[in-house]
Amino acid sequence: MTYRAPLTDILFSLRLAAGADLEDLYADIADGVAEQTLNEAAKFAEGQLLPLDRTGDRAGVKFADGAVTTAPGWREAYAAWQAGGWNAIAGNPDHGGLGLPALLNAACTEIWNAANISFALCPLLSHGAIEALEAHASAALKETYLARIVSGEWTGTMNLTEPQAGSDLALLRTRAERNADGSYRLTGQKIFITYGEHDLADNIVHLVLARLPDAPPGTKGISLFLAPKFLPDETGAFTRRNALHCAGVEHKLGIHASPTCTMVYEDAVGFLIGEENNGLACMFTMMNNARLSVGLQGVALAERATQAALAYAKERKQGRAPGAPETSAIIEHPDVARMLLTMASLTAAARLICFETAASLDRAHRDQDPTRAREAEERASLLTPVAKAFSTDMGDEVTSLAVQVHGGMGYIEETGVAQLMRDARICAIYEGTNGIQAIDLVGRKLPMSGGAALNREIDDMRAIARESTVAAVGAAVEAFAQASDYLLCATKQAPAEALAGATPYLRLFALARGATLLEKAAKAERRENDHNAARYEALAHFFAKNIAVAAPGLAQTVIEGARSVTEGKAAFGG
Amino acid sequence: MTYRAPLTDILFSLRLAAGADLEDLYADIADGVAEQTLNEAAKFAEGQLLPLDRTGDRAGVKFADGAVTTAPGWREAYAAWQAGGWNAIAGNPDHGGLGLPALLNAACTEIWNAANISFALCPLLSHGAIEALEAHASAALKETYLARIVSGEWTGTMNLTEPQAGSDLALLRTRAERNADGSYRLTGQKIFITYGEHDLADNIVHLVLARLPDAPPGTKGISLFLAPKFLPDETGAFTRRNALHCAGVEHKLGIHASPTCTMVYEDAVGFLIGEENNGLACMFTMMNNARLSVGLQGVALAERATQAALAYAKERKQGRAPGAPETSAIIEHPDVARMLLTMASLTAAARLICFETAASLDRAHRDQDPTRAREAEERASLLTPVAKAFSTDMGDEVTSLAVQVHGGMGYIEETGVAQLMRDARICAIYEGTNGIQAIDLVGRKLPMSGGAALNREIDDMRAIARESTVAAVGAAVEAFAQASDYLLCATKQAPAEALAGATPYLRLFALARGATLLEKAAKAERRENDHNAARYEALAHFFAKNIAVAAPGLAQTVIEGARSVTEGKAAFGG
Repeated sequence: MTYRAPLTDILFSLRLAAGADLEDLYADIADGVAEQTLNEAAKFAEGQLLPLDRTGDRAGVKFADGAVTTAPGWREAYAAWQAGGWNAIAGNPDHGGLGLPALLNAACTEIWNAANISFALCPLLSHGAIEALEAHASAALKETYLARIVSGEWTGTMNLTEPQAGSDLALLRTRAERNADGSYRLTGQKIFITYGEHDLADNIVHLVLARLPDAPPGTKGISLFLAPKFLPDETGAFTRRNALHCAGVEHKLGIHASPTCTMVYEDAVGFLIGEENNGLACMFTMMNNARLSVGLQGVALAERATQAALAYAKERKQGRAPGAPETSAIIEHPDVARMLLTMASLTAAARLICFETAASLDRAHRDQDPTRAREAEERASLLTPVAKAFSTDMGDEVTSLAVQVHGGMGYIEETGVAQLMRDARICAIYEGTNGIQAIDLVGRKLPMSGGAALNREIDDMRAIARESTVAAVGAAVEAFAQASDYLLCATKQAPAEALAGATPYLRLFALARGATLLEKAAKAERRENDHNAARYEALAHFFAKNIAVAAPGLAQTVIEGARSVTEGKAAFGG
Repeated sequence: MTYRAPLTDILFSLRLAAGADLEDLYADIADGVAEQTLNEAAKFAEGQLLPLDRTGDRAGVKFADGAVTTAPGWREAYAAWQAGGWNAIAGNPDHGGLGLPALLNAACTEIWNAANISFALCPLLSHGAIEALEAHASAALKETYLARIVSGEWTGTMNLTEPQAGSDLALLRTRAERNADGSYRLTGQKIFITYGEHDLADNIVHLVLARLPDAPPGTKGISLFLAPKFLPDETGAFTRRNALHCAGVEHKLGIHASPTCTMVYEDAVGFLIGEENNGLACMFTMMNNARLSVGLQGVALAERATQAALAYAKERKQGRAPGAPETSAIIEHPDVARMLLTMASLTAAARLICFETAASLDRAHRDQDPTRAREAEERASLLTPVAKAFSTDMGDEVTSLAVQVHGGMGYIEETGVAQLMRDARICAIYEGTNGIQAIDLVGRKLPMSGGAALNREIDDMRAIARESTVAAVGAAVEAFAQASDYLLCATKQAPAEALAGATPYLRLFALARGATLLEKAAKAERRENDHNAARYEALAHFFAKNIAVAAPGLAQTVIEGARSVTEGKAAFGG
């Protein structure tokens, strides 16, 4: 199964998201820098990462005596990744990073994950650690650790989950005790730690949430610590093994080549990041960006699945399409064409939503106008749960459709699309389940600034819908506006019912936003007379009339269906 | 992970589907026979089959030197299955079967497949062979083979697919040549043959589609043959190995313990079933019932997944539900409750649709009134593709939701719900992909008797909707009626566009039928003042307001969305 990075689509989506800011805010990637970077990224992903994706799935990781051995070829690929400077593209230049915009990093993230999500998870976690350290760590910690994670010499992890504390971090129990020298001793067990142990780098820098003995209960008593696998000895060399180890790896549905570790801390040395009892805020800094990256994983696997299904559908001959004189390629059958258009349009819509989110992050960081910067930050906050949850839900749908297009062949592991479906399935779960995203959207993001961010989003959608000739676009936007109005009140007056509608509301948001962004894309292409125009017109039409038509039903669910949820317990005999 | 056969739901659904005919047509299962049979079936499934489901998934099947070895314990379980008489319940009494109604068989089929789909596939295929032989085989073939397959001493297979001929059997190439003694020689390769080779029984009776040298091209030149693994020697003992063998087994996404074989025929001796060149008709006899059984597999896995998710959601504590003073079981969170209600109501609706289909088959066979019998036969034909495709699509949705409810634990194979998702995924593919079902519904079933069967179905739905207090029920039925009217014309005037809407139309059919059957179920329970009434009322309300609300959007897709499919090629660059 091949994969070619869809550079035309990616560059187009990138330019569309940057919009009028392309020349002002993105000077550093003008003059072909973006194109060149993406070309090289595609070459590396297709040449180095893609060939290890299937072999990694089969080999998995080996665990013995506390050590994790990655699949054959992975050490070499990681060395090439580091040597190529890929790890550093998003890092801060103060610590050896290239400081490229979030938008270009998003485009690269899609490409890495499409080629090999199990591999790409390692730098994804490192980037989370980089962001948390940049924002909250002391100068001394930055000095010692940051540049080495930015370069990729060392990797980073996030240690949040414990057996009893998953979505609810208030329940975490890992203990931190103060040492006389200002450091801390960490004791506890963490589970589901991605790349918690591996053989790709010489040191692993763990970011660990733990609780001080005198901490208040709940989420306000959580602190964030840095605990490296190796501590410096007297010479400053990192040779002293810290009192932490991997106790096992999970046997998972997918992402077999990515080690998912149980980590045990037994009086391990840790260093405080930020202030005591302020760990959750530090962690959330990094989680927002990680959530966007996970959304891009959904886009990535959907793109790859769509390419695989399309190639198969053009080649495989079965049955006669209506009016065909002889056996047709299955793409000619309307039902197969529907599946392929569903896949392609969902993928394109989710990419546009994710890239808009990334562009908002850039605007928030780069725009000199404080109002624009603040509004952009709010927009990124608003869009992040939608980008994460919609992209990963549609990642599940699209990879499953790829199996369906392949028929019986899709169910055979050798074909490779079943792996995409297995790999994609984690994305709706980690970095906050998609239910948590929906609750975040309705409970925290929607009421921001009294609904102002939301209303700006609706205004933008309406402006696009007004210009559209397809009635379903406007209907989707109005259904979204109606459900939004309802929820803005309901979150205060009937919180349980508001939360009962959270998941369908998030989907509704994505359908309205997806339909309008595809419409905008088609218009933009038409203006430029690009050869891509016909493609985006077809995708926009299909999406509006076949996918966004679900919007009024979803609004009805949000507004009228909630009580059948909150009063639905009788269905379970009590 | 436990599973308890949901006998209350099953018996209730069975009585609802039998309706007024319960006393007339189902005398053979009156006086507690149905209850007793299902109790015993549940005991066998829970005690014998369920424990082998996980171990079978891990062990898979072993292939060496043409022989397939099933997982440890499977031979013993099959022996117990046969000894218990379970294989014979649906067979014709003339050949040792119990002749029990399709409705009771459907109920048992759900239970076997919930406990262990990989195991249940073996008798499912045997039953297909039994039906084809009963309907079309010569007395001599019946005499030799039928009773032994009915008892389960031997098993049966269906050999349709070839590498170049999957959904399109017209392309099949396996050759059959006439021998002087009236038998035939079969040569060719068949793939994806479920239980094509195994060690559970002494002989395997293959039903093979092949083409005679002078056959017309296409589907009108296909004949059906019986080719046993062992032929009789001079003493009549089945010791003579036929010239057919298994060349390998597939490495699949799921149903690991069920061998999926490549079968090679090299001048294998075969015996004609039915008439030359009429093989496809013979095969379709068996495929209709097999399709209903596959629909029941979807119901089965969805039921088991719902039970698992419900148990986990009642036990797992995370976060505070709205208004709760302390950490809540996750079932208390509205978003989790929504997932569980989605799972339970989809499962209940699909079960009702499948059982209605089975009851129509019984009516077709048992009703003395020829008009009622014919109408029942048409109804079974109409409902079969809906039962198959909707039940298996929702089987995918529900098993995936079970993973989601389990969060990170769901992604770990040890938890068991990931296996349900992997196992379920084949059901939308085999026995005619769900796309093929939708095409069958729109192209063949909808126009039956000038749309009369369809209109009877709509009348029945309308009668229920009129009595409903939930507007969404009526809206779903009217959306379905509107799309049906459109398609009755479009299938003639714009076949490509009609086919482009086939899949959303099938879903729309299922939503309208599911909502009305759940409504009927809730009413029936209320009349009987059953303790189950509150459960079905909750399920009916939830389904109408949260799932069936998609109906108008689907109708819009069918009626207005088709052109964006047939004209959508530009999305793929040409």
